Amino acid sequence: MRLLWQRAVRLQKLMPQTHLAPHTHARRLLATTSASARGGGQEEKENPKWSSPGSKAEIFLYGAFWAGGLGLGYVWLTRRYSSTPDEEVKPDDEAVARLWHITPRKDLPTYKTEQVEQHNAPDKGIWVTYGLGVYDVTEFAENHPGGDKIMMAAGSAIDPFWAIYQQHNTLEVLELLESFRIGNLEGLTVPNAEEELGSPWAQEPERHALLKPASKRPFNAEPPIGLLAEKFYTPNEMFYVRNHLPVPVLVPEEYELEIDTSGGEQGGPLLTLTLAQIKALPRHTVTAAIMCGGNRRSEMTDIKAVKGLSWGAGAVGNAKWSGARLCDVLREQGVQPNESMHVIFEGADLDPTSHPYGASIPLSKALDPRGDVLLAYEMNDEPLTRDHGYPIRVIVPGVVGARNVKWLTRIMVADHESDSHWQQNDYKGFSPSTDWDTVDFSKAEAIQAMPVTSAICTPLPGERVKVDPQGGYITVRGYAWSGGGRKILRVDLTGDEGKTWHVAELEQEDSPDGRHYGWSLWTARLPIPEEQQQRRKAGGSGELEIWAKAVDSAYNVQPEKFEHIWNLRGVLANAYHKVKVKLA
Amino acid sequence: MRLLWQRAVRLQKLMPQTHLAPHTHARRLLATTSASARGGGQEEKENPKWSSPGSKAEIFLYGAFWAGGLGLGYVWLTRRYSSTPDEEVKPDDEAVARLWHITPRKDLPTYKTEQVEQHNAPDKGIWVTYGLGVYDVTEFAENHPGGDKIMMAAGSAIDPFWAIYQQHNTLEVLELLESFRIGNLEGLTVPNAEEELGSPWAQEPERHALLKPASKRPFNAEPPIGLLAEKFYTPNEMFYVRNHLPVPVLVPEEYELEIDTSGGEQGGPLLTLTLAQIKALPRHTVTAAIMCGGNRRSEMTDIKAVKGLSWGAGAVGNAKWSGARLCDVLREQGVQPNESMHVIFEGADLDPTSHPYGASIPLSKALDPRGDVLLAYEMNDEPLTRDHGYPIRVIVPGVVGARNVKWLTRIMVADHESDSHWQQNDYKGFSPSTDWDTVDFSKAEAIQAMPVTSAICTPLPGERVKVDPQGGYITVRGYAWSGGGRKILRVDLTGDEGKTWHVAELEQEDSPDGRHYGWSLWTARLPIPEEQQQRRKAGGSGELEIWAKAVDSAYNVQPEKFEHIWNLRGVLANAYHKVKVKLA
Repeated sequence: MRLLWQRAVRLQKLMPQTHLAPHTHARRLLATTSASARGGGQEEKENPKWSSPGSKAEIFLYGAFWAGGLGLGYVWLTRRYSSTPDEEVKPDDEAVARLWHITPRKDLPTYKTEQVEQHNAPDKGIWVTYGLGVYDVTEFAENHPGGDKIMMAAGSAIDPFWAIYQQHNTLEVLELLESFRIGNLEGLTVPNAEEELGSPWAQEPERHALLKPASKRPFNAEPPIGLLAEKFYTPNEMFYVRNHLPVPVLVPEEYELEIDTSGGEQGGPLLTLTLAQIKALPRHTVTAAIMCGGNRRSEMTDIKAVKGLSWGAGAVGNAKWSGARLCDVLREQGVQPNESMHVIFEGADLDPTSHPYGASIPLSKALDPRGDVLLAYEMNDEPLTRDHGYPIRVIVPGVVGARNVKWLTRIMVADHESDSHWQQNDYKGFSPSTDWDTVDFSKAEAIQAMPVTSAICTPLPGERVKVDPQGGYITVRGYAWSGGGRKILRVDLTGDEGKTWHVAELEQEDSPDGRHYGWSLWTARLPIPEEQQQRRKAGGSGELEIWAKAVDSAYNVQPEKFEHIWNLRGVLANAYHKVKVKLA
Repeated sequence: MRLLWQRAVRLQKLMPQTHLAPHTHARRLLATTSASARGGGQEEKENPKWSSPGSKAEIFLYGAFWAGGLGLGYVWLTRRYSSTPDEEVKPDDEAVARLWHITPRKDLPTYKTEQVEQHNAPDKGIWVTYGLGVYDVTEFAENHPGGDKIMMAAGSAIDPFWAIYQQHNTLEVLELLESFRIGNLEGLTVPNAEEELGSPWAQEPERHALLKPASKRPFNAEPPIGLLAEKFYTPNEMFYVRNHLPVPVLVPEEYELEIDTSGGEQGGPLLTLTLAQIKALPRHTVTAAIMCGGNRRSEMTDIKAVKGLSWGAGAVGNAKWSGARLCDVLREQGVQPNESMHVIFEGADLDPTSHPYGASIPLSKALDPRGDVLLAYEMNDEPLTRDHGYPIRVIVPGVVGARNVKWLTRIMVADHESDSHWQQNDYKGFSPSTDWDTVDFSKAEAIQAMPVTSAICTPLPGERVKVDPQGGYITVRGYAWSGGGRKILRVDLTGDEGKTWHVAELEQEDSPDGRHYGWSLWTARLPIPEEQQQRRKAGGSGELEIWAKAVDSAYNVQPEKFEHIWNLRGVLANAYHKVKVKLA
């Protein structure tokens, strides 16, 4: 308990503006530790069941306490429509659907909280509440797109989870939920904690108006792709944002990074570094593109629906990152190479059960000086912004964005991967025939290095493009990148479905292969066959489909189409980029 | 001169059975060194022009001296038909064509050797002789599939080159050459060295009868693909052979490996290691598949002709290699990491101008303990065979076969890649629209790590396959591999053009990713749709096309088809493997 308390005090120091007292942090930590941990006096008073932190009722009460519970849906709804409605909302239907869970259904029975609590496992049935609705999700639970997470709410309220994971607040999901409705919840037993604690979203930073949100809470947004290839280093305020949880508020003077190498071979004692200490380590700068595992997912969705945010081709950016090298820190601690070990990262962003966002990478990558893994404090020569992990994030060049943990608070050397949802049950690839009935996340490897990809940034789909009157060509521009430090060797363009290919000019850094972590921008002059130009002048459609494909230094090439790489999570969407334009 | 002589004596020690006296070695070396080197007495006597080793006439005389010159073609022809004719030969036409160059053409003028010698550059015209034919190849030279090599024979005889590169001895090439014929060569000025020196092919080893030659001289052969996936470690005698030149004869007691690190940062003095000394270094074993850059070229040829040996899918094998680690040797010599440097390897196999086979890899790969580069003396726990580089070859795991130099005699750390033909003007990839008119080898990167690939080994194309009566499936088996140490994560099979995919079971070593150099064998049960089984029983064709595709640990996947990865050299042929079978 003492250790837990110390850690809570430390977290409290890190996040003084989150209105959470140390004992609240301790409770959160308790909920994440083994059953051998026992709660102390104050927790007992507030919740007699606290000493068995695994119980669903406890998570229910705690979660509701933290994020608002019953009534929050309504508050949120009214606020929502008094401010800026999302573009994708159909106000009529969805506004009505948003009232269902706070409206009693007279055709259905009423249940007590205790009755709901008893239905917290597949063999007992899985019930959840949302507002005052009671829902039987036993059948649905195993198909839940978010995986096991739904079990955290089994026998309790989903309100605090949905307050975080707002991708649930769509007409489709609300309709699905209402179809599981079996009754109404008796009484209002849950305190409205909204006012006491503030919304977890109250401290979100301001964002650039050009960032197009794929979701607002958590905030996930990409810049307009037409601007993306204009600058080799993506401007910080235009860099795509991929948050899994609310943005934590960290105070630099109080920031501490805990480095636990005791699980490694010859690892040293626990090390705690302040921001000043990290900045005092030898500074190292690396150019690296960071790409979301779901970049270009929207194109894959055209084949068949997938679960995930509908990213365009803008969930990538290229920046110059500066910080201390993780390999220096680990070696200084005495950590020896071991092929079966991992380095686990935790962020200060916490989910409703107080689990931090987490991910891991192989120790071999972390220890390799050519791996260039950084404890980064600067992005394009400026301090990180809050959306990009201020004050410290880990940069794992060549590796999927999800492992580049932001708001880094803890590093552990361990003989296993991170047990976080995002490492275990997300960001993995599957065969096109694997569906939500057959998927087994434990059988697939977590994405680390990303495959080769490219995208056409200009012209945009549907754009009217002027053919150069002298040269008979159009100019096409975009980016290309491959993971694992593999340099882009070539980008090929075609306007006739591959009958002829035209090699683009590359703009790239002169980094060595294997350590070439930045992206390549490319420009191609794509000749328009005379015949096609004539057809257009004669009043034909003048439509042209442009294809781009990149080749990396292992001579890997993008697959032609999405059909055969489709996967249920819509990750790794790296088929040829195809854009239809009109010749002007 | 002294140094040259020493090196020649050393080479002579290495290859006592090649009938070459030290002065002959010295002459060879001389031909490969800068113009500042000057010949000594004996060479002067034999060839007054020897002191200007760059002259074409000298190479002509020397080359002819070495390999046989005039008359060899005829000798070779008669021998050929008295032994085993190649399958692809059309005896009538080709036998006649093989006589053309030793038959005077009365309709054409006669030229002196000196006249031929004057035509040795594009601006003066490029003439060559073959037998007693004189040919003007000025126009053809720039389209020569072998690149600049043709210029080595400019103004002189091609006979010694064709004796090595016997891919020229086809009806097509002989017809092309005769179309350039402009005259007859006066007199017989070239000594017949055949008897003095023996054919360079006289010392070739015995090979296993099951190895199917794609070419006999140099020997290039693959095992039947149907046997390839039977054993995880390919039996040594069944391992594909890719020789670029005649197999040298090296005596283990005399073998020496020269290691020149003086070009590297903090490199040490010249080091010479005997075989015993190499074996005394710490022994390291690594499982690695070696794959020819042209593996599966024959499938690419189906799209459009390419230049290169017609390999099936058997130009790959998997073995356990043992030897000393190159990184240990280089570090012991003090070599420091440097991202812009390379390690150059030379073999004891020499071309007609005495240039050794050569290749290079980045220094970063050579110095990386995870790179596992070996000075290998054992293959599957047995000493290397002569065809696989006895007594020492370098094993560069994860990298195209061409860099795994056999009969290794010299290692150099340098600030540039190997200047060998095979590094500079071969084993590179190009866009599908690059042809022999537009290709610029200097603009493409030498292949190092190979892309992900897979092949179906059984059933064979056209085979009648029995559907399992209970399960309604057929069993499909093959291999998959990716370069750069990337592990195979998954192999997907389809029998309905990708409408449904079935994941294969993998057999692979438990090596860590990034260091997973061995191949993966796989077995899949491919369900046959009931409908198709019925159709077959009703007398339908019962034909089934099976596709296989592999996914590596960077989630790179094979491209669907060859059309968009076609390249003029037919390398990197890693599209889906597609095999049509008949259901029995």
